[in-house]
Amino acid sequence: MLRRASFLLLISAAAAMAVDIPESRLRMFKPLPQAVESQKNPITPEKVELGRLLYYENRISKSHKFSCNSCHKLDQFGVDNEPTSEGHRGQRGDRNSPTVYNAALHFAQFWDGRAADVEEQAKGPILNPVEMAMPDEKTVIATLKSMPQYVELFRKAFPQDKDPVNYENMARAIGAFERKLMTPSRWDRFLQGDKAALSDAEKAGFLKFVETGCATCHMGACVGGTMYQKLGVVKPYPGLKDEGRAKVTKREEDRFFFKVPGLRNIEKTWPYLHDGSVKTLDEAVKLMAEYELGKNLSAAEVSSIVTWLKTLTGEIPADYVKPPALPPSTAKTPKPSLTD
Amino acid sequence: MLRRASFLLLISAAAAMAVDIPESRLRMFKPLPQAVESQKNPITPEKVELGRLLYYENRISKSHKFSCNSCHKLDQFGVDNEPTSEGHRGQRGDRNSPTVYNAALHFAQFWDGRAADVEEQAKGPILNPVEMAMPDEKTVIATLKSMPQYVELFRKAFPQDKDPVNYENMARAIGAFERKLMTPSRWDRFLQGDKAALSDAEKAGFLKFVETGCATCHMGACVGGTMYQKLGVVKPYPGLKDEGRAKVTKREEDRFFFKVPGLRNIEKTWPYLHDGSVKTLDEAVKLMAEYELGKNLSAAEVSSIVTWLKTLTGEIPADYVKPPALPPSTAKTPKPSLTD
Repeated sequence: MLRRASFLLLISAAAAMAVDIPESRLRMFKPLPQAVESQKNPITPEKVELGRLLYYENRISKSHKFSCNSCHKLDQFGVDNEPTSEGHRGQRGDRNSPTVYNAALHFAQFWDGRAADVEEQAKGPILNPVEMAMPDEKTVIATLKSMPQYVELFRKAFPQDKDPVNYENMARAIGAFERKLMTPSRWDRFLQGDKAALSDAEKAGFLKFVETGCATCHMGACVGGTMYQKLGVVKPYPGLKDEGRAKVTKREEDRFFFKVPGLRNIEKTWPYLHDGSVKTLDEAVKLMAEYELGKNLSAAEVSSIVTWLKTLTGEIPADYVKPPALPPSTAKTPKPSLTD
Repeated sequence: MLRRASFLLLISAAAAMAVDIPESRLRMFKPLPQAVESQKNPITPEKVELGRLLYYENRISKSHKFSCNSCHKLDQFGVDNEPTSEGHRGQRGDRNSPTVYNAALHFAQFWDGRAADVEEQAKGPILNPVEMAMPDEKTVIATLKSMPQYVELFRKAFPQDKDPVNYENMARAIGAFERKLMTPSRWDRFLQGDKAALSDAEKAGFLKFVETGCATCHMGACVGGTMYQKLGVVKPYPGLKDEGRAKVTKREEDRFFFKVPGLRNIEKTWPYLHDGSVKTLDEAVKLMAEYELGKNLSAAEVSSIVTWLKTLTGEIPADYVKPPALPPSTAKTPKPSLTD
């Protein structure tokens, strides 16, 4: 018996030491960049600083209650942890607010890809009647122009422009800020060669993630955000009403397709799926394996994958998380409306 | 015993009748169009007719031995059924010649997507030293211009152009021809509502295809040709040397990614994979399930999927298959070179 016990010990020690991820398994992934550069909208410190203020600016909502940060909270991994977010007068949309962190890397924005980049995305919620509910671009710009500090910040951020305070430049500034919102994690250190950055259990979880087939869709720097995929590709996802990408393209074959979400910080960005209907990460992993890959994972397998997913929880850039002092309103600044 | 036998008979009869494909499973697929329209290169009968001649034109190869049709044989489902194709002086490239049928629908051309469309693709092999091996575009155009019949056909196909015989227009004509090379099959009739177009065994095979996860990558009108995917996504594909898409992008994360091939006429377009290394369709299905989806399919499961795949074998457009009478050479037509 002693002999057998030693033998088993040896085996388990060998197994514990044996988790080695071959280079070939890592090529589909890459570390986060420091920022997501854009030729159309080069990042400058002036734009980023203006964008940071605008990101927290609640006076570009009809009620003066909502800013980008209301639903995409920078101190909360870029989400509000609600299935759908509260907007103007308590209204809620039908989709979960995705995290803003690392989103600039995604190949398209929104769950259905209806905006090409973060600049285009930024223009949407401000005018959406169930979100920030501003009546039109003109009112947004009049609000910003009413505060001399903003006019000066726009002038600095867009020195070539004669009339720099406009809706496009507002979106450019917010976009430039968002292009810096990266959250590198232990996974990046591992990808950069620090093999001790992950435990054996985490490495085993990564291999399980790949062997299960998750990386067919979840790949790249964001571990997702590179394609659309059908929710329910191997069997119909129960109760699915939202037509996803088909709402944008009007094409039958895009029905129930959504952007594959990035899995960076996924541990912290519950609830899951486009409608926030799944509360726990274990459940989300189990459901995705079943409906996207036709595999019934055991609890141990789910747990192993989740162990790795937690290594994607990154460091939030502390200097961006502190709400900035916003420019003071003036007599010209439009008043909030709470009643319509 | 009799009772048990009747019971089993009933069950098997019920099972045989029970194969019904819900609409929701079909949305990722769509019937082939009659032609793949292009704003950049509108299809006209004149371009198509010129393109058809050029497709069979062997005098735009250095040895006068090779045409598009040498490797993409229109009477052989658009392929030559060889692992790699013979080109100039017996040389062979390192990739399998994919079928030209339905290829115009693909989101990109070549196994690595290095050409955006069929027009761009058509320019490649003519100048490739291991394929048609023409020394330069000028010699190609001089060859075509040496034959008055071609000059006239180019003039008719491109009536707005002052000097219509040029390399771009040659590619446009070949592209316009290829945009018509569609092979509708029983699968299209089924998708268009004729539920009797498929047998129960074929319908069961389709459901097995989807449930296995094949449709994660093989979707749309071509049952593929909509994305790149890694060969060996769940475990390394043995002996893989060709870096695929990474050769084009030089990006580490694209290593071993290839365009997901369309499965139209897959029964007839052996051998399989980018290097033609897999001889039978059964083997190809088994390998894809194993390396792309992490599933070990039984022989019966493979056979069921293959039963459905055979419904993708379409009708070849008979009028395009007959080699046309090519314009006669003239004294000005460059002579073939067989020695260099």
